[in-house]
Parts: sequence; structure tokens; C-alpha cells
Amino acid sequence: MNKRIGLFGFGVVGQGYYQIAKKHKEQWTPDTIVVKNKFKRRAFDLKFSYNPQEVFDKNPDYILELISDTNEAYEYVTEALKRGITVISANKKLLSAHLPELIQLQRVFGGKLLYEAAAAAGIPVITTLETHFEEDEIISLEGILNGSSNYILSRIFNNGLNFSEALRLAQQKGFAESDPKFDINGSDVASKLNILGLHAFGKFIGEEQIPTFGIQHLGEEEIALAKRLGLKIKLIAKAERDYRGIAAHILPTLVEEHNPFYGVENEYNAVKIVSEHLQEQFYQGKGAGSLPTGAAVYGDLIKAKNGFGYSYSKVNFDKPLDEKLLNLGVRVLIKSKAAALIDSVLFSPELTHQIDGVIFAVGKIKPKNFNKLNESGEVSILALPDNYAVESIEAGLKTIQNAGEVV
Amino acid sequence: MNKRIGLFGFGVVGQGYYQIAKKHKEQWTPDTIVVKNKFKRRAFDLKFSYNPQEVFDKNPDYILELISDTNEAYEYVTEALKRGITVISANKKLLSAHLPELIQLQRVFGGKLLYEAAAAAGIPVITTLETHFEEDEIISLEGILNGSSNYILSRIFNNGLNFSEALRLAQQKGFAESDPKFDINGSDVASKLNILGLHAFGKFIGEEQIPTFGIQHLGEEEIALAKRLGLKIKLIAKAERDYRGIAAHILPTLVEEHNPFYGVENEYNAVKIVSEHLQEQFYQGKGAGSLPTGAAVYGDLIKAKNGFGYSYSKVNFDKPLDEKLLNLGVRVLIKSKAAALIDSVLFSPELTHQIDGVIFAVGKIKPKNFNKLNESGEVSILALPDNYAVESIEAGLKTIQNAGEVV
Ligand SMILES: NC(=O)c1ccc[n+]([C@@H]2O[C@H](COP(=O)([O-])OP(=O)(O)OC[C@H]3O[C@@H](n4cnc5c(N)ncnc54)[C@H](OP(=O)(O)O)[C@@H]3O)[C@@H](O)[C@H]2O)c1
Ligand SMILES: NC(=O)c1ccc[n+]([C@@H]2O[C@H](COP(=O)([O-])OP(=O)(O)OC[C@H]3O[C@@H](n4cnc5c(N)ncnc54)[C@H](OP(=O)(O)O)[C@@H]3O)[C@@H](O)[C@H]2O)c1
Repeated sequence: MNKRIGLFGFGVVGQGYYQIAKKHKEQWTPDTIVVKNKFKRRAFDLKFSYNPQEVFDKNPDYILELISDTNEAYEYVTEALKRGITVISANKKLLSAHLPELIQLQRVFGGKLLYEAAAAAGIPVITTLETHFEEDEIISLEGILNGSSNYILSRIFNNGLNFSEALRLAQQKGFAESDPKFDINGSDVASKLNILGLHAFGKFIGEEQIPTFGIQHLGEEEIALAKRLGLKIKLIAKAERDYRGIAAHILPTLVEEHNPFYGVENEYNAVKIVSEHLQEQFYQGKGAGSLPTGAAVYGDLIKAKNGFGYSYSKVNFDKPLDEKLLNLGVRVLIKSKAAALIDSVLFSPELTHQIDGVIFAVGKIKPKNFNKLNESGEVSILALPDNYAVESIEAGLKTIQNAGEVV
Repeated sequence: MNKRIGLFGFGVVGQGYYQIAKKHKEQWTPDTIVVKNKFKRRAFDLKFSYNPQEVFDKNPDYILELISDTNEAYEYVTEALKRGITVISANKKLLSAHLPELIQLQRVFGGKLLYEAAAAAGIPVITTLETHFEEDEIISLEGILNGSSNYILSRIFNNGLNFSEALRLAQQKGFAESDPKFDINGSDVASKLNILGLHAFGKFIGEEQIPTFGIQHLGEEEIALAKRLGLKIKLIAKAERDYRGIAAHILPTLVEEHNPFYGVENEYNAVKIVSEHLQEQFYQGKGAGSLPTGAAVYGDLIKAKNGFGYSYSKVNFDKPLDEKLLNLGVRVLIKSKAAALIDSVLFSPELTHQIDGVIFAVGKIKPKNFNKLNESGEVSILALPDNYAVESIEAGLKTIQNAGEVV
């Protein structure tokens, strides 16, 4: 029997989904497609609707929510779940903001909500956490979760572009949004880590609570230093659990060659999961793009049809979902002209090195201070690889100083 | 309500499973454990049975088949499936030999058979093919699928051991079987590729049909050459589809630094899947060991409890499952003293270089010839990276020749 499918949004992801369904299974093409802008020229000659109510009036079995707006997506998704309809969404901002409520609606009204595409686009990380890792205790989850940032870093490290050239190229290629702020400041990554945190640890962290530092403050000196040391810089999101609770943060990170993240280039995403029994696993795949993301949406629909839903088995529904993060020190290299600012946040100092009035220091910072440093606009921070020798950093700094690579 | 679980086998994997279930969910510990050897001292003080019938007499809901023998496993698993019981198996030899029949038994009697641990132990590749890739067309699947071979290659490349030293260490560490033949001659890999091929392409290749060359003929010269060229050697299983059919083979392969397989070390396994829409994905995780493998078995059981079963959606049951492999030429570096042997198999030659009576040649070989070369015992073959310049191979050979690195 044919299923009725309503689709909201016909942009990059919506069109990717449509093409796949059209080619593979006619019965999985939507019978209603709602978009926003009546005056937009469309690449497909289809009948579009501009009235969300039309989707609901047709009593759909499934709703695909693939729009760019968060507030309207909230209206559509909650309305659908209240009607017990199964919903597929790719909307990380929506999910990150409202997951506890959306889980409640699933429990109360029996509709399912799947959203693989919202975390790492093509990589099936939520499905894997929900199946393979369902009864295994997650120790840590790390990821490269923003394709645009990673593309920019690849151009800087592999093609010698500077930051603004690389950003421009990312925009031209369609990887960065026209306002790329949410890509490069890590905000998109925080949404994703927040969603993954729920499936990994059963706790809702809340993205505004995740200390986040993007790649926007990265300077020529750190890039030169990383290259000299044979390291790369990647924007890494990390969440880990110990007996006291959960710690999480997002930081540009120096990565050694033997680290699997080292080889993750361009618009690829990757996730590393360490668990008690399955131990270390690493997944890499396309983190954006019309077909990979559309295929993840399509995959969710097929899974839902086969009866699959997230069991949220790590969640203890007898306790509050919310979790207050631990504020554990992170070992970093910090760079700034403002000595007082560094002094106010750095503890366990291991090194201070000055080059032409710019201070480079190695020590620890509490993640709670990231925001203040971010807003100052005068600081760059890089997390160090585990146990990385401070002597190597010092030697590297001297080399770039002597080579005149400091601007 | 408690489920009744019968367990066959209490070795590496069975004990891994038992420990996990014991710690996490008492109700998932088996109520009957059947083993073979009455005189073996056991690390756990449990009541063991030596009579397979005892498992069936208790009318179990689930049976875990984790034994080392293939024929007896066949008896237990077919008996269980004929009773409609859900079975979890880690037995690649059994599955590779009998999958078509075992699938039939599931269809006829309604029991399920899950076997994630049989392919890449801890990596959830079958589950992912069955869910995320369910409706995506697989173009190719490649993998490092034997932890012992990979461990040996890691010791050779990272610690400078020679082949026999590395093999001895693998045995001491418990990664290689006491008769390590099946590990290093690629036979274990062929079973796994055969299983994965069914889930990726919906076709049953049959492992005896997969041209297989293990690492046992690898000589000092090829190792020295790879090191000089900044390459590593990995035992890679590959299956790919084009419009004519499926090609597959298993060969030691020269791997470049940018290839994600380059960083897969020790007992890790990895799988790379290229598909039409999700495009390129790469998964890495523990390919052997008590807890990772036991956790994969445990994960299967939890999935089965939640209603999950393989849908074999890529299989067209109206056609024969069997597939005859394409015999497409593979570009290789071949080494032998036997000029006539090389001449009899190599076509599209690009290079011949002699060092002290040993011939090194680059060209193409039809996989059907692997067996003959294997049995001759006089030849080593290495697959080349895509588009690798023959000039680099030639320069490398001259360098090792001049450095006297040829034994
Ligand atoms: N692009 C990716 O690679 C990617 C990857 C993972 C997740 N996502 C997520 O997927 C979602 C869609 O992204 P996208 O890249 O496809 O965005 P997009 O290309 O900007 O397209 C957005 C679509 O939503 C429609 N829309 C906006 N507001 C609407 C409303 N109130 N009602 C109905 N339709 C509305 C737009 O209509 P008009 O056509 O009329 O403007 C447009 O068709 C976002 O949540 C995004 O974060 C994207
Ligand atoms: N080891 C790994 O990392 C790994 C990974 C993936 C898959 N696997 C697969 O998992 C299976 C088990 O491997 P393993 O490493 O656990 O083997 P193992 O350590 O050699 O243990 C085999 C167990 O099977 C029992 N057994 C043998 N024949 C039996 C029979 N006819 N009836 C009942 N019990 C019997 C043995 O009994 P006794 O104790 O009385 O000798 C022993 O307990 C194999 O198919 C293997 O290929 C292993």
C-alpha cells in the first residue's frame, strides 16, 4: 500500500531526497511539497504548495521537515508528533533546542522522530549509537562536525591559502552559508554535539552550555607553527564522561599524524567513539551535500517503515534529562597580545614565549572561560594533543620566529 | 518477562559475551552453556553442559552460536532456525559456506539470524549496510578484515621486525591462531568478504570463487621498497560492481599516506564503502578480541529483542543468489625468480627490473591466476595504488638495489 508523505522544504536537502526517491521508488516521492517563497524559480517542474495546512489535511503517514527556519519547523514538527505522525528532520537547530520536549511528544502520542541527517549528514552515527552501542557505555565521543570549517582548514593546510581566501572559496563552492558565522564560530557544531550527547550519554546538555571556540580567531602564527610541527588544526567537538559527570567543549585542536582525524579533509565529517566494550571506533563520511544528506533522510524513512525508532535506551526517564557540565581544565596553547587576559584564565602554566609583543603560552583553561575569551576577540586557543611535549611547542615557536613567519 | 538464552561455546567470544551480560543485565545471561571438552579447566565457576540437546529441550527464545567448529555449528544453527528460534552467530566459516540456505530457513520458519561479529567483529558494518545503506546502491566495498595479518604488518612497518618475528609476536599476543595459516593466507578474509558481499550487493559469491593471495609470500624486498616509497602494505579485500557484474579479490596492497587504510594499525579492522548517494564512508574499529566481539554479539541480541532482523533488501529472491565473478585485470607489482611464470600471467606490462636474478615487473594480472601463483610458492604480488606512477616504483627499486637492501 502506498504511504502518504508530506515534505516541508525543497532546498539542498529536500531536492536531494526527492531525486533519490524519484529514481528508486516512485511511491516514496512526496504527494505534497510545501515551500516558502512564491516567487522563487524552481529547478523542478512540480506542483508546490505554500500552505503548511495542506500537508496535514492529507493525513500523511510521514512528514519530512527539511526547512531552514527553526520556529516554523517547531510548529510543523510538534503538530505532526501530536497527531502521532512519524517525522524525519535534518534540522539540528530545532532538535538541539527542543529535544526533551520532542522526545516527550513521541512517548505520549506514539509518533516517531528520526534525524540522522542532523548530526553528521551522511554518517549513520545516531543509528549506530541507538543500535550497536545501545547497551555499551560510552566513554567519549569526538567529532569533526562542520564541513565548511573543515574545508577551510584543508585549503589552509593543503593549498597554502590564508583564512579569508579559504573562506571565500568555501562560500563559492556552496559549503559555507552566505553568512558563514554559524559555520566558523562553532555554533553549528554545538547543536550537533548536543544532539549526539543525548544519544551517547542519555543526558541533555543544552548547546548554550557547551563551551565553544570556532576557527574564526585562528592566526597565521598558529598555522605556521602547526605546519612546522607536522601537525594539522581541526575543529574538534568532544564530550566525555567520568564518574563525576560529563565534560564537553568545542575547540580548534592540534592533531598528530597518527590520529585518525588528521586525514579527514574537505567537507568530510568524522566521529570517534570510545566505549567500554566495543572500545575505539571511528567513522568518516560526507558531512554535507544534497545527495549524502538526502540519502540519510531517505534511509531514515526506510528504517521507520521497517519499524525502527530511537529507543533512547540510555535516557533514565525517572530523572531530569538536563545535565550540568563539568568544568575540567583543557590543556591549550593560547595566543594574545593581552597579557592580563591570559593571566586571568591560564593555570598550570608550562611555557610563556613572546614574539614581537605577542604572547604564546601553554597551560590549562577552564572551558567556562571560553566565552569571555571569544568575546574579547583578542585571543586564539588551540587544544594540544594528549601528552604533547611542551618542548616541541617551544622549539616550533623559535623556528617560526627565526624564519620570520610571525606577522 | 525473562527470555531463555542458550549458549554454544565458551571461548574468547563466549566469555566476552558472558561478562558483558553478567555485568549489565543479569537476565541476558544464558541459562544453558554447552561446551565440548569435559576435561578443560574453566575460568568461570559455572554449570556447563556437554549435551547440545539440553539447549533445545529448554525451548530457548535465543541461541548464541559461538563455537569454533563449523560442522557442528551447522547442525545447531539449522536446528534452531527450523524451530523458528532467533540465532546470533559469530561463525564466519559457517555463514560463508551456508548463507543461502540459512536465509531460506529464516524466510520459511520465521526465526532470525544475526551475525555482526562474523564480519568485522566490533565494527557494525552489516547492520549499517542493512539500515543506512538499505536503499543505496553500493559501488565498492573494501576492507582490512583480518586482525592478525594487520598486526603482523604493523610490526613489520612500525617496529622493523621481519615476517617470522612479527608472526611469532602475533601468536604470543593471542591474535593469530596456533595454526596461523587461515589468518595469513587470506582464507579468513575471504569468508568475511563473501558475507559482506551478500549484504552489499545482494549476491552470493562463494568464498572459493574469490581470488585470494595472503601475506605469507611477502618478501624483504617488497617491504624495503614500500618503506622507501613512504607506502605501507595492507591486506585489502575488495569487491566492486559495475554494469557487467561484480569483481572481487584479496591481495596485499601498497597503500598511500592519504588513504584512510594507511593509519589502520595492529588488530584493528576497517571498511570503506562507496555508494551512489551516501558516497564514500569509512569505518574503523577492533577486529578481534573478547570484549569487542562479545559486545557485537550482545548488540545483536538487543537488536533482535527490539524486533530488528536483516531484511536482505538487496537480494532479488526471484533470481538465483549465486554470482559468477568478473575476471578483470588488477594492476600489480609481481616478484619472482621464475621468468616463465611471470610471462604466463602478466599482461599490459609497464616495467621489468632485475636485481640479482630476481625479477620485478609491473603490469596486470587476471585474478583467476592468483591460485596458480599462490600454489607455485615462488611469487609475491602487491596491488598498486590507483594511478601510481610506474616511474616511482622503478626509482624505488633502484634505490633498494643500490642500498643493498635486496636479500
Ligand atoms: N545542506 C546540507 O548539506 C545540510 C546537511 C545537514 C543538515 N541540513 C539541515 O537541513 C535543513 C535544510 O537545509 P538546506 O540546506 O536544504 O536549506 P536550503 O537549501 O536553504 O532550503 C531551505 C528550504 O526550506 C524552505 N522553507 C523555509 N522556511 C519554510 C517554511 N516556513 N515553510 C516551508 N518551507 C520553508 C525554503 O523554501 P524556498 O525554496 O521557498 O526558499 C527552502 O526550500 C536545515 O535544517 C539544515 O540545517 C543541511
Ligand atoms: N576470537 C575472536 O576475536 C573472534 C572474532 C570474530 C569472530 N570469531 C568467531 O567466533 C567463534 C568462536 O571463536 P572463539 O575465538 O571464541 O573460539 P575459542 O576461543 O576457540 O572457543 C571455542 C569454544 O567453542 C566450544 N566448542 C567447540 N566445538 C563445540 C561443540 N561441538 N559444541 C559445543 N561447544 C563447542 C569450545 O569448547 P571447549 O571450551 O570445551 O573447548 C570453546 O568453548 C568462531 O566461529 C570464530 O571464528 C572470533
